[in-house]
Amino acid sequence: MSTAPRSDEATTPPTIGMVGGGQLARMSHQAAIALGVHLRVLAASVDDAAALVSPAKALGDPGDPEDLRRFADGVDVVTFDHELVDLDALAAIERDGLAATRPSAEALRFATDKAHQRRRFAAAGLPLPRHRTTTDVDEARRAAGELGWPVVVKTARGGYDGRGVWVLADEAQLDELLHDLTTDAGLAEVIVEEAVSIVREMAVVVVRSPDGTERSYPVTETVQVDGICRETITPARVPEDVAAEARRIAEQAAEVAGAVGLIAVELFHDGEAVTINEVATRPHNSGHWSIEGAVTSQFENHLRAVAGLPLGDTQQLAPVVVSANVLGHADGRDPVQHLAGALAVPGAHVHLYGKGPRPGRKLGHVTVLADSLDDARQRARSAVAALGDPVPEVD
Amino acid sequence: MSTAPRSDEATTPPTIGMVGGGQLARMSHQAAIALGVHLRVLAASVDDAAALVSPAKALGDPGDPEDLRRFADGVDVVTFDHELVDLDALAAIERDGLAATRPSAEALRFATDKAHQRRRFAAAGLPLPRHRTTTDVDEARRAAGELGWPVVVKTARGGYDGRGVWVLADEAQLDELLHDLTTDAGLAEVIVEEAVSIVREMAVVVVRSPDGTERSYPVTETVQVDGICRETITPARVPEDVAAEARRIAEQAAEVAGAVGLIAVELFHDGEAVTINEVATRPHNSGHWSIEGAVTSQFENHLRAVAGLPLGDTQQLAPVVVSANVLGHADGRDPVQHLAGALAVPGAHVHLYGKGPRPGRKLGHVTVLADSLDDARQRARSAVAALGDPVPEVD
Repeated sequence: MSTAPRSDEATTPPTIGMVGGGQLARMSHQAAIALGVHLRVLAASVDDAAALVSPAKALGDPGDPEDLRRFADGVDVVTFDHELVDLDALAAIERDGLAATRPSAEALRFATDKAHQRRRFAAAGLPLPRHRTTTDVDEARRAAGELGWPVVVKTARGGYDGRGVWVLADEAQLDELLHDLTTDAGLAEVIVEEAVSIVREMAVVVVRSPDGTERSYPVTETVQVDGICRETITPARVPEDVAAEARRIAEQAAEVAGAVGLIAVELFHDGEAVTINEVATRPHNSGHWSIEGAVTSQFENHLRAVAGLPLGDTQQLAPVVVSANVLGHADGRDPVQHLAGALAVPGAHVHLYGKGPRPGRKLGHVTVLADSLDDARQRARSAVAALGDPVPEVD
Repeated sequence: MSTAPRSDEATTPPTIGMVGGGQLARMSHQAAIALGVHLRVLAASVDDAAALVSPAKALGDPGDPEDLRRFADGVDVVTFDHELVDLDALAAIERDGLAATRPSAEALRFATDKAHQRRRFAAAGLPLPRHRTTTDVDEARRAAGELGWPVVVKTARGGYDGRGVWVLADEAQLDELLHDLTTDAGLAEVIVEEAVSIVREMAVVVVRSPDGTERSYPVTETVQVDGICRETITPARVPEDVAAEARRIAEQAAEVAGAVGLIAVELFHDGEAVTINEVATRPHNSGHWSIEGAVTSQFENHLRAVAGLPLGDTQQLAPVVVSANVLGHADGRDPVQHLAGALAVPGAHVHLYGKGPRPGRKLGHVTVLADSLDDARQRARSAVAALGDPVPEVD
């Protein structure tokens, strides 16, 4: 089947500015090269993963309103490698028409403020773990009592990769934490939440156009150890109806958030219900498998969406796709010095981010396409073991 | 199946310098980003396809011995985006140990000097069209008489994309050409060759390591119009035994040439025999399909080979892979302004090279993976028709 071009009108694609120069910007640069679109990155340092490989970079602090504004002024569309931006400055950029912000400050807030996310998703009827958002110590204690022990507490802002999330066994632990989170300004806003009995953690990457067109990727299972994603398995090992439900929820969440570009929706499955954990309004670790494993990678689809270009096919290319993260080895090894070991593994697609090795730091990932999970997983893990910290033997 | 790392020894990969900043260097840069290896390009201009997207570039004239030497001095391995280099200067770089040259000047000569190629391949017993190499007008005329009309004449040096090759109907045409090719220094060296009745033109991309390890890609059919490749079809539409023979010949040619990195071997099939046409000792247009269509792309495998890293799997990922070239449209359109039309075609992988549009200039390519040739071809052509000159309706 062939589809005729939508229009024969000539339109120059926008120059895209990506705030942040990490690995997501680095892999976006690879996708931008293929499309021939202009991508500039705002990097904190010339040694940032993307700055090392792109000539189109501005140096500055993405958290600084002035730097952000100057950067936005030089591009047509602003998008993000991370969420550590000043939302007020971003809203001002929108208001003043300096550049289109994709996603908008409003959509980005779903990722930077978990309390906001919980309130808005709850109002839209999306399934969430039972929870309470509060800035009041007594209310937090009451909520915990009602939800039962252990209980989960998250700060509304500033957490990632397992930071800013605590599982508390009893009142004494809760009180200690609430004390630590209290300053002269009072208690930092927290979400007190039931500890879901997780059977599987999943993520659904959704790509959404400015006109609201959406496509979701197959459901990915994220294998987390100590709050850090070590491995993804696509498709997730959940029944088909659960996968369909996860995609439906994620697509609705993308709409409610008003996302433009990618949004990754992280979900819990407790064996019965699917609930939303967090969202990230950008390319996401749980979508790295799509570079080789899907018709269109998450990075290309993000660029297509924010540039207002047609979205690409999200279909998976092999029965099983496993991506395993390369975390810095305790011995401090530089993964690039161990490429030979990793590349000797048949079908191992190695991605290194050019970052200085530090134990536990995310330095790369390896993707393997296969007919069986065991095969894909074994090969991905074998390559990762050469490059960095071995993936723990979890199921 | 899992393969254990070959060695646990830490080895820093070489810094690779690619001479030439065209689209091959541009796509090599994308592959280098994934591997985390350092690739520098020697570009003639900041507007070169690779220079636009890479921060690691030196500006200079690859044909200038001094520029080449300076560039080589700053890298560990020198490799090539094109063959327009001074082979004596390159040999001096090898001799002085400034950098490893992969391929060597000796191997590169198979691509830059067709007479040398014919002599060496003939000596190795490789199948070639009947031909004579000569710098003598009378001998050229005698050879043409023996080979019969029409006859093909090629200059030994300087031809590409159909230039430097003539099909001559009779003695009058031959005499006129020989006169044009004669200067005060005499007749430029020519190959006088039988006009093969071509049923299919094919190319086999072979990747070869410094230690002689080789892997070949499936045979690609190159659809040529006026000496320019418009489309590739993989696998080529030839019987299995012909494909096996083509791969065997190409692998032997790679050995005879002493290639390191990629070598693309272009072949004729006249319905009975397979013969060698030309070789290019670098990534090649006929291997672009491998970016999405093979486990390991030609660009990644070229980098792996010249860096002394293990070679990647060359297996094809779909029953049919078609790549169609985007040549500049007669109306002068810039393909990037017509991305929307091309990206609306399902499964069309668009690659634009960032080059200024000129009618007939190679500006990009589109790859489609499919279950059937008709489907792949129709979609690839549909996307190309949005971006540039439509692919002629040839079989």
